[in-house]
Amino acid sequence: MTLANRSLVTIDDLSVAEIEVVFSLADEMSAARDKQFDVCRGKIMASLFFEPSTRTRLSFEAAMHRLGGSVISAVDIGATSLAKGESLADMAKVVGSYADIIVIRHPWEGAAKVMADYAGVPVINAGDGGHQHPTQTLCDLYTIKKERQTIKGLKIALWGDLKYGRTIHSLIFALAKFGADILFCPSPGLEVPEHVLRKLTTEYGGELQRYQAPEQTAKDNLFPLDAIYTTPSSPHQLAMISGISIEVELKTGVDALYVTRPQQERFAPAEKGREAQPEYPVVDKKLLKGKVFREALVMHPLPRVDELAREVDADPRSMYFKQAARGVPVRMALIALLLGAKEISAPGADDSFIHTKDYPAYRRDSGIRCPNPRCVSIQETETKYLKPEFKIVDREPVTLRCVYCEHGFEPKYVASTDWHEGRLENKKYHNADSRWARKIKPENLIIFDTEATARNSGFKPSRSARAVH
Amino acid sequence: MTLANRSLVTIDDLSVAEIEVVFSLADEMSAARDKQFDVCRGKIMASLFFEPSTRTRLSFEAAMHRLGGSVISAVDIGATSLAKGESLADMAKVVGSYADIIVIRHPWEGAAKVMADYAGVPVINAGDGGHQHPTQTLCDLYTIKKERQTIKGLKIALWGDLKYGRTIHSLIFALAKFGADILFCPSPGLEVPEHVLRKLTTEYGGELQRYQAPEQTAKDNLFPLDAIYTTPSSPHQLAMISGISIEVELKTGVDALYVTRPQQERFAPAEKGREAQPEYPVVDKKLLKGKVFREALVMHPLPRVDELAREVDADPRSMYFKQAARGVPVRMALIALLLGAKEISAPGADDSFIHTKDYPAYRRDSGIRCPNPRCVSIQETETKYLKPEFKIVDREPVTLRCVYCEHGFEPKYVASTDWHEGRLENKKYHNADSRWARKIKPENLIIFDTEATARNSGFKPSRSARAVH
Amino acid sequence: MTLANRSLVTIDDLSVAEIEVVFSLADEMSAARDKQFDVCRGKIMASLFFEPSTRTRLSFEAAMHRLGGSVISAVDIGATSLAKGESLADMAKVVGSYADIIVIRHPWEGAAKVMADYAGVPVINAGDGGHQHPTQTLCDLYTIKKERQTIKGLKIALWGDLKYGRTIHSLIFALAKFGADILFCPSPGLEVPEHVLRKLTTEYGGELQRYQAPEQTAKDNLFPLDAIYTTPSSPHQLAMISGISIEVELKTGVDALYVTRPQQERFAPAEKGREAQPEYPVVDKKLLKGKVFREALVMHPLPRVDELAREVDADPRSMYFKQAARGVPVRMALIALLLGAKEISAPGADDSFIHTKDYPAYRRDSGIRCPNPRCVSIQETETKYLKPEFKIVDREPVTLRCVYCEHGFEPKYVASTDWHEGRLENKKYHNADSRWARKIKPENLIIFDTEATARNSGFKPSRSARAVH
Repeated sequence: MTLANRSLVTIDDLSVAEIEVVFSLADEMSAARDKQFDVCRGKIMASLFFEPSTRTRLSFEAAMHRLGGSVISAVDIGATSLAKGESLADMAKVVGSYADIIVIRHPWEGAAKVMADYAGVPVINAGDGGHQHPTQTLCDLYTIKKERQTIKGLKIALWGDLKYGRTIHSLIFALAKFGADILFCPSPGLEVPEHVLRKLTTEYGGELQRYQAPEQTAKDNLFPLDAIYTTPSSPHQLAMISGISIEVELKTGVDALYVTRPQQERFAPAEKGREAQPEYPVVDKKLLKGKVFREALVMHPLPRVDELAREVDADPRSMYFKQAARGVPVRMALIALLLGAKEISAPGADDSFIHTKDYPAYRRDSGIRCPNPRCVSIQETETKYLKPEFKIVDREPVTLRCVYCEHGFEPKYVASTDWHEGRLENKKYHNADSRWARKIKPENLIIFDTEATARNSGFKPSRSARAVH
Repeated sequence: MTLANRSLVTIDDLSVAEIEVVFSLADEMSAARDKQFDVCRGKIMASLFFEPSTRTRLSFEAAMHRLGGSVISAVDIGATSLAKGESLADMAKVVGSYADIIVIRHPWEGAAKVMADYAGVPVINAGDGGHQHPTQTLCDLYTIKKERQTIKGLKIALWGDLKYGRTIHSLIFALAKFGADILFCPSPGLEVPEHVLRKLTTEYGGELQRYQAPEQTAKDNLFPLDAIYTTPSSPHQLAMISGISIEVELKTGVDALYVTRPQQERFAPAEKGREAQPEYPVVDKKLLKGKVFREALVMHPLPRVDELAREVDADPRSMYFKQAARGVPVRMALIALLLGAKEISAPGADDSFIHTKDYPAYRRDSGIRCPNPRCVSIQETETKYLKPEFKIVDREPVTLRCVYCEHGFEPKYVASTDWHEGRLENKKYHNADSRWARKIKPENLIIFDTEATARNSGFKPSRSARAVH
Repeated sequence: MTLANRSLVTIDDLSVAEIEVVFSLADEMSAARDKQFDVCRGKIMASLFFEPSTRTRLSFEAAMHRLGGSVISAVDIGATSLAKGESLADMAKVVGSYADIIVIRHPWEGAAKVMADYAGVPVINAGDGGHQHPTQTLCDLYTIKKERQTIKGLKIALWGDLKYGRTIHSLIFALAKFGADILFCPSPGLEVPEHVLRKLTTEYGGELQRYQAPEQTAKDNLFPLDAIYTTPSSPHQLAMISGISIEVELKTGVDALYVTRPQQERFAPAEKGREAQPEYPVVDKKLLKGKVFREALVMHPLPRVDELAREVDADPRSMYFKQAARGVPVRMALIALLLGAKEISAPGADDSFIHTKDYPAYRRDSGIRCPNPRCVSIQETETKYLKPEFKIVDREPVTLRCVYCEHGFEPKYVASTDWHEGRLENKKYHNADSRWARKIKPENLIIFDTEATARNSGFKPSRSARAVH
């Protein structure tokens, strides 16, 4: 199996089998870390960090050096070339002609995809806004795998800020793909976004069971669980029974407790300030004495602030410094594979239960723009060459997902290129959630943000559209 | 031929034959880019960037890594050591004792020369203010050479901001040296400075033909040509005939169209704002359909903003990403040669038509300072050890050129050390453009900025000087 | 002798014999600088600079590259991870899992010790606030040794800002350890702190002779000498006789004149501004014509501003650029030794005359905090895991020294865990400088900052404590 010349933009770019290949090679390299320095000799990695990140950058650069490669590095470059109004595509082409592989961190969601589309060399996403951070997810999965031999069938609790952590969203889908169950234990107000949960159940199958009173669970000396996701791979008997008590659900304990820091830098203004977050839960010795955590790996992507007490550091269950250390062999393996410096025989067939759905594309130029203000596709320097592009991920109601930032949204109006009997009086636009909308074939669908753009395109309101007024 | 231990401060530091040597080695290294990593093994390049420049820095660093060398890098150091009041000379000596070669970018014009004067190791100028950026010029020339086999006799159009682009000024003199003809197509208000044109005709020979109404040429579906320079090497028949129409001049087409971005960061305050530059011309598909550009290479030093439409990227004439990519082998060749890691047999005699004139030096301490506010020689930290030094490049009127920033200017008053018959009443200073001024031998010339300094040096005004009052 | 896995936080971490080992290896590496690139092949150095320092960082990075190792570098990281509230201990553990050795510069005093305590790999202090900069001291000593073959018995004059220069304080103790005499020539107001002088005489033995009128010495065409320290190793005959004139003292001349720049960035507000420092003395040709300097090495840690005239650069006695250049082989030797990449047979027994005293530790949690505002132990992110810890370095009065920043201070109140006859009415706290205080055994000592904390701990004031009211 070769991964040569591939990019890693989202964790979905790698199948379960491919991830297992990365892990085998990481094992091999970890066992002989200081003997890899001919693997990428003569190769150059460019690390382009448009946002500061000492830890992630140093981990990538250490990995490349351990492989004997070289690094050219641009840190906090927001202020330089971009100030001159340069586009990401131009920078991708230029840096792609200097280096053999590019690592990028960028505040715009989808920036890594643009880099990968234009660079001509493999690109690794080291974090693009709140979107994805797939190598962090690889380190997380690798740590679970190393400690528990498998990920399938494990029960993983996610703790703290489940709303803004980009590492959390990548991890959720990866865990589902590997067949783990997920327990959601958010800090109040920082629950997992609905679109993530929806994607879990619609694309990854499995069941989602919600708890109405997470406060109650906390008072019962449990923890603030608000939902459990059980994968379709191991249809969880208990999950089938509605109203089952959490105590029963958890009697076997959780296998890992994944703690995250409040991503204050992404909080909306109203969420800031200590008053607004009075209850950010702290993982400490006392909590970990609970039966449910007896065997739990305590994980954290770091850096931590106060959500994970230092007294836990000496506990053998604490994994977070191991997670960080394992980032080096995982990234070594990934870099070596993408550069084609290593190939490895695949461990049999892909054992993933879930395959990403193949949604129809929407590329029509009908004035639709991604509504996510951090999406790369709507930034001034990028609109000069990037065309908006979406997947039609649902029809009831019509739901688009931006191919860059993967943000989903529901546009208001639709029409068909194939209007009834070709008669001009039938050239009408409809409310996106009307029954007319559902009848249009995907290949004929035209989507409008506003009635004005629909009218400017020569369409008149149908009865459903008029009804909205 | 060896270039070992030489520095590259301005493009004039290399003869045409030496540039050809760099290009041969670049060809060789380009053909086997990944096999050069023993050439500079154990050598260290320091890259000192006092101004941000992701692209140029990464290109140099990639080149050094491809040669197997190491890089120590200081980015945006304006705020650090210089804040402590350190001089460039001190930094040159120290860094020169750490590294084997230094690459410097600095906002002060002449800074690279100072670095080269004190470092004790080869220094490459990666851009010093608005002065020079010779390796960009090498990349430009190399691209033309690769695509057209020769530079001599080609017709190169320069487009856009010809006033502030440092790459443009280096390129103009290099093209003249190689025997190319130059068409000047400035954005209105951003014409080539007069001193550049004067230097072209006085030092490089050749003829300059000016057009009075560039607006007219634009309306005739041509382009905003305001002057053509024809080299003495290939005396251009048409250029001899005054009033010749541009259509005839251009009927053979141009060989390259070199586009530049408006260097807004160097604009004078009055030049800023969109209102002030309503007509910055855009190179797009439509323009390139013109007959004159049928065979033209479309070049740009990058980054671009809007002056070069993205639709041109797919055109086979577009060269700008190739220019950037070729920066790596050109810089590899240059570094290897200056470090003495490669020597190469010269391709015969120097075929340059032009030899830099040997102007008399003016080093006398008579209070003259370079009037260029960005010149390194007048900065507070540098005046403690740098003595002003000039070339006397003209006598009618007396014109000095600073040896650091190469800025030319006309001082007001002159006197002679050898006053008439040695009688004190003849110890007089003159107007610099008077007939007395012209009679003074260069070795006797004393030059004053103001009458006050002349008087303080014991001179009295001659009749010519009095007349100015 | 092996130095493998050791850290260098203060110059006292190395014995005289160990420093000599570093110097022998530096000699060896200096003689064949370009042949060391297999010594640390495959090893990674992390350079973490929380404060800007181009020169020191480039010197370390050049050293690692000359050894064939790789560098991962984070510059000016104050704004990144630390902004997220991360502790130094967490960063130490993480970076220690990426790299084989860490070089740190940090504005907090004691930061390098914390890094060394947690990293799990060798740590080199490249400057921690005003505390220490031990590798600069190694370069200084190495230069003296190279030029004079020995340090023992030499007379070294320290000139300028002896108050804020961290390089000066490291150097003073190192010179004492090597058995050199020290002449203190401060700029008025920038004298060596008393605690440094006290440590010299109490820990290093030797004698300190003070001059009352340094202005007078300056007028006598000498220089602003305010004290001489003579080591116990070579009991200086003249120093025994009080009132001896400086002329006699200096008739043999000084061996080195170590000049420092005013560390304006550390000046207290009242010390800033030109008016406040009218007399910062300049070392120039004229001063160096003095008999006393005939054989003196002129040294400076660089960067310099105006305190050392550029006219001295050409003087054969000027050593400062050699000092900087020698930083590379010294750091090469140090890195290779700490990484265990080189071992070297020790040159016989340790010939140091002074052994650091073994003071009793004070670790009791009685509310005592280091009063140094720049001490690492009191910073918000660090107090979460660091416990204050001190050495009891004196009893009359009770004096504590922080183990992190080595700042000494006199707490106000003390008590004993073993109160008289165990009767509660004897559970009293005393004035720290009272006779009761002196009677308490070190292992029983409890120390309080304020009376409130003493009372809260259940103690009542003794007569001595009441007397203070």
